[in-house]
Amino acid sequence: MDITKKSPSIITLLTDFGTQDVYVGIMKGVMATINPNLNIIDLTHAIPPQNILAARFALMNAFPYFPDHSVHVAVIDPGVGSARKGLAIKVNNSFLVGPDNGLFSGILEQNPAQIAVELTNSQYWLNPNPSNTFHGRDIFAPVAAHLASGVDIEHLGTKIDMKSLKKANISSYQQSGKEIIGSIQYIDVFGNLITNIPANLLKNKSWQVFIDNLLIPTGKTYSSVKKGELVALIGSHGWLEIAVNSGSAKIQLQKNCSDQIRIQL
Amino acid sequence: MDITKKSPSIITLLTDFGTQDVYVGIMKGVMATINPNLNIIDLTHAIPPQNILAARFALMNAFPYFPDHSVHVAVIDPGVGSARKGLAIKVNNSFLVGPDNGLFSGILEQNPAQIAVELTNSQYWLNPNPSNTFHGRDIFAPVAAHLASGVDIEHLGTKIDMKSLKKANISSYQQSGKEIIGSIQYIDVFGNLITNIPANLLKNKSWQVFIDNLLIPTGKTYSSVKKGELVALIGSHGWLEIAVNSGSAKIQLQKNCSDQIRIQL
Amino acid sequence: MDITKKSPSIITLLTDFGTQDVYVGIMKGVMATINPNLNIIDLTHAIPPQNILAARFALMNAFPYFPDHSVHVAVIDPGVGSARKGLAIKVNNSFLVGPDNGLFSGILEQNPAQIAVELTNSQYWLNPNPSNTFHGRDIFAPVAAHLASGVDIEHLGTKIDMKSLKKANISSYQQSGKEIIGSIQYIDVFGNLITNIPANLLKNKSWQVFIDNLLIPTGKTYSSVKKGELVALIGSHGWLEIAVNSGSAKIQLQKNCSDQIRIQL
Repeated sequence: MDITKKSPSIITLLTDFGTQDVYVGIMKGVMATINPNLNIIDLTHAIPPQNILAARFALMNAFPYFPDHSVHVAVIDPGVGSARKGLAIKVNNSFLVGPDNGLFSGILEQNPAQIAVELTNSQYWLNPNPSNTFHGRDIFAPVAAHLASGVDIEHLGTKIDMKSLKKANISSYQQSGKEIIGSIQYIDVFGNLITNIPANLLKNKSWQVFIDNLLIPTGKTYSSVKKGELVALIGSHGWLEIAVNSGSAKIQLQKNCSDQIRIQL
Repeated sequence: MDITKKSPSIITLLTDFGTQDVYVGIMKGVMATINPNLNIIDLTHAIPPQNILAARFALMNAFPYFPDHSVHVAVIDPGVGSARKGLAIKVNNSFLVGPDNGLFSGILEQNPAQIAVELTNSQYWLNPNPSNTFHGRDIFAPVAAHLASGVDIEHLGTKIDMKSLKKANISSYQQSGKEIIGSIQYIDVFGNLITNIPANLLKNKSWQVFIDNLLIPTGKTYSSVKKGELVALIGSHGWLEIAVNSGSAKIQLQKNCSDQIRIQL
Repeated sequence: MDITKKSPSIITLLTDFGTQDVYVGIMKGVMATINPNLNIIDLTHAIPPQNILAARFALMNAFPYFPDHSVHVAVIDPGVGSARKGLAIKVNNSFLVGPDNGLFSGILEQNPAQIAVELTNSQYWLNPNPSNTFHGRDIFAPVAAHLASGVDIEHLGTKIDMKSLKKANISSYQQSGKEIIGSIQYIDVFGNLITNIPANLLKNKSWQVFIDNLLIPTGKTYSSVKKGELVALIGSHGWLEIAVNSGSAKIQLQKNCSDQIRIQL
C-alpha cells in the first residue's frame, strides 16, 4: 500500500443522505483518516430515499466517465442492519462498494464483474462492531479507502459467485422481428420518461414509438415540437426518452417506472 | 511552513451560507490562494440560519471521525461585525476556527481545549481591514489555511483563558441515584428528538424514558413499534432519541429544544 | 504537460445543473480521467436555469479570490447545440472556459482579456463528435482539464478578436456631473436589489439614492433601519444595494433586473 504516490485514487460517493446533515462529511473523515491523499468526488446525495432504481440509473450513467482504478461507493441501503450482504466488486479495472440490493446491476449489465467479494473481514472496517444503521460510515467508507489505497479486493472478505448478486427490479427490452417492447426505467425531475432502449439499438434506423397505442412524434430535441406537445428522442443519457416540450410527460401520460413502451422499426 | 508535503492537511467547513450563492466557493478560493494543496471537506452548509445549537450538534458528531491535525472551520456568526471574538482552539491535536459563540462547546465538553487564541494578528487575514459582514472570507478561511499549512497557533493572536470561552445554551444531564434528568439538544429534519443522554450512560442497563410522565416504549430501531407510535432508542449519533415510526415525535409530543426528559434506571 | 507537479491547478465549476442528477459528477470524472491531480472547487450549481445575468454576477464576485493559473469553467448554456462559439479566454494569468454568451462579461469589464480562442480543436475534447446537449461534459470539462495541466491556450483552437466576444445584456452606469444613473444587475434570494454601482464610486462621498424619485435612506447595515423599512447600503459583494430589513426590497418596490436607480452625490 503506497499512500504517497503522486496520482491519488478517485473515490466517488452516491447516497440518499442529502447534504443537510453531516453524514457524508463523516464518511469523508473516515476515508481521510485512512488515506489523506484520496480524491473524493460526489456523484449525488439526492437520490430519493431508498430508491434503488434511481441510484442504479445514476451509477450506470456516470460509470463510463471515470478512470480505471476508481472506487465507486453507493449507499442506498433500505436493508441496513438486516442479513443483506455488503459487497466489493471488481469490474472493468474499477471497483464498486455497497450493499447487495441491485444498485450496481445497471453497470454490471454493461460490464461483466471480474471478482465479487462479500465484506466479511472486519479488519478493514471502522471497528469490528458496526452500527445497525450506518454501514456507510462503519463498513463501506473504510473498505473503499483501503481499496483505493491498494489493498487487494480478495483480502476484504469471501469471494462469492457473481451469479448470486441481487438484481434490480428492471426488465430488459424484448425484440421480436421489427417490434421492440421496452419499459420506463427512470423518470427525471422534469417528468421525462427515460426508457430502457439504448440509442445504439435505433441508430441508422427509422422507428416509431407507441405508448398505449398512442404514436409519439419523434424529434432531435425537445423543441422539435411545439410547447406542450409530446416528443420521442434520444436523450443526453443515451436512452430513448419520451418528453413534453416545456412540460411533463409523466403527468401528461400518467406513466410510472416499469410501464411499457413499444417501438416499431 | 512546508506546502509541498505529500499528505495534505484537511480543512472541514460548516456554515449556514447554503450552496446557492458563491460564498463557500470564495472561502475555498481564499484558502487555495494561500495553499493549493489543502484537502477541503464540506461538512454541511445547510445549518439553519444562525442556529448555533444545530451547528454545535453537527460539529460534535463529526469531530471524532477526522484525523489529527485537521482544521475545522465553522461560520455560524450572528454576531459578525460586533465585539464577539474570533477564535482558534487547539484540541486533541486538531484545530477549531470560528466565532466565540458556543459553536464548539459540544466538542470541548468531550475533549478539553489545549490552547485558545483570539484572532488578533491581521498578518494572517485576507487583509488588515476585514468587512463587517463576511469574516468567513476575511479572517476564518485565511487563518485556517495558514494553520493547516503549519503556522503555529500562538502566532495567530493573543492566548486567552479557556474558561472565558462562550458556551452554548444547552444544559447537561443531571443524575441522582437511579434517576437522570436530561433535555432535548437537537431535533432533526424528521422530527426525531435527540436528547443530551449519551448511549454509554445506558449501556448494559435496563431503563425507562418519560416525557411529561408519559412512558415511551423502548426499541432497537424505529420499526420496533407500529407506524405512528412512539419509540425511545439509541440513534446513529450515539444519543438517546425519541422518535415516531414513519412520523414526527416533535409534532406528536409538541416538544422543542431544551425541553426535559426523565430516565429511570 | 507535467501532471506530477506538487501544486495541483485549480478548476472552478459553475453551472445550472443542480446537484440532484450526476451531470456535475460526470464532468469531474471526465477531468479526473485526463488529470487525477486537479483540485476542483464548486462555485455553485444552483444558478437559476439559463440565467446568464446571475451567472455573470456570481463569476465576477468569485474571480478575484482565486489564485493565478486557476481555470474557471461556467456552463450556463441555453444555446448549446446551436452555432454559438465555445471559448477559452486568458485573463489576469487565469483562464475562463465556457460558451460565448456574455457569462464572463462581468469579469472582463474589470480585467481585460489577454487571449481569446474559439474551441475548434477536437483533439482536446472528450471525442470528436460532441452531443448536441451536453458540451459541459464533451468539450468544456476536457478542455479545462488540459488547460489546467499545462496545454497552451492557443492549441485549443482559433484565436479570435476580443471585441467579438458576446456581452451580457447589462448596461453600465452613466455619470454626468453629480448625478449617476445605474441599474439593478442582480436580485438575491432575499430580494435585495444589487445595483451596478461599485462601492469605490461612492467612497468618501456623501450620496443619496432614488428609485422612481423615492429617496432611500442610507445605512451601514440592514439593521440600520427598522424592520420592514428600506435601506441603501454597500453590500458584502462590493456594490450599492437596496434592501429591506427582514424583508424583500424586490417585493416592496416591485422591481426587477435592469430597472433604473439614480444617485445624487
